[in-house]
Amino acid sequence: MKKTIIFILFMVLISGCAEKVKRYGSVIGVKKDMLAKYKDLHANAWPAVNKQIKKSNIRNYSIYLTQFPDGNYYLFSYFEYVGDDFDADMAKMAEDPMTRKWWEETDPCQIPLSNRPKGEFWKNMEEVYHLEKE
Amino acid sequence: MKKTIIFILFMVLISGCAEKVKRYGSVIGVKKDMLAKYKDLHANAWPAVNKQIKKSNIRNYSIYLTQFPDGNYYLFSYFEYVGDDFDADMAKMAEDPMTRKWWEETDPCQIPLSNRPKGEFWKNMEEVYHLEKE
Repeated sequence: MKKTIIFILFMVLISGCAEKVKRYGSVIGVKKDMLAKYKDLHANAWPAVNKQIKKSNIRNYSIYLTQFPDGNYYLFSYFEYVGDDFDADMAKMAEDPMTRKWWEETDPCQIPLSNRPKGEFWKNMEEVYHLEKE
Repeated sequence: MKKTIIFILFMVLISGCAEKVKRYGSVIGVKKDMLAKYKDLHANAWPAVNKQIKKSNIRNYSIYLTQFPDGNYYLFSYFEYVGDDFDADMAKMAEDPMTRKWWEETDPCQIPLSNRPKGEFWKNMEEVYHLEKE
């Protein structure tokens, strides 16, 4: 019994460290006249949308807003992907009816960067530094 | 003994959930002709600098790079602060000799946003959305 408990304790300890995580950072513009709507939507994100994001193996997802010196506003997102097939998980997300309804609200608020690679909406950024969690 | 082990197991289980975390996102420009130097420095960050960052209660720290449509480059940082006094921890970091030497290398690579609040170097961004880790 004691050995079993110690084994469980050990497994709990290493489980947090063993999980593979891929981090994503991306950027997009946001329209000045849609700022209030975008912020309000995200302050009260639909539970079905949050649920689908988690189902698609995304965790610890943050979006930041800032104004640039030229007066334009940009959004920066950071999230951690814990699944095995990012493209497949994103494809499933894009099929979810509530997520599609959500995007019908959020997409018109945004201005994708004109120099983003083909196939991207948010422009994916390059990670140049990472200091781990522990 | 058994009760003690179960108690320890319980404490380990809740410790991960109980930790308070404050997330920070910020942005700064980077000079085109210093890009290679900045990337190289961060691909091989000095161990003493990483150590001081952790000592200052910063975890899970990532920096992303991207080019904007106007040709300029920007860096976006995300990190999690797990201490009790952010200003005090940052002040201690600013006193660390190796961190100061590191900043002597990195500061000249960067172009702070002209519309940043007084006292900031990296411009702090506003969190508008967060989906938790679990």
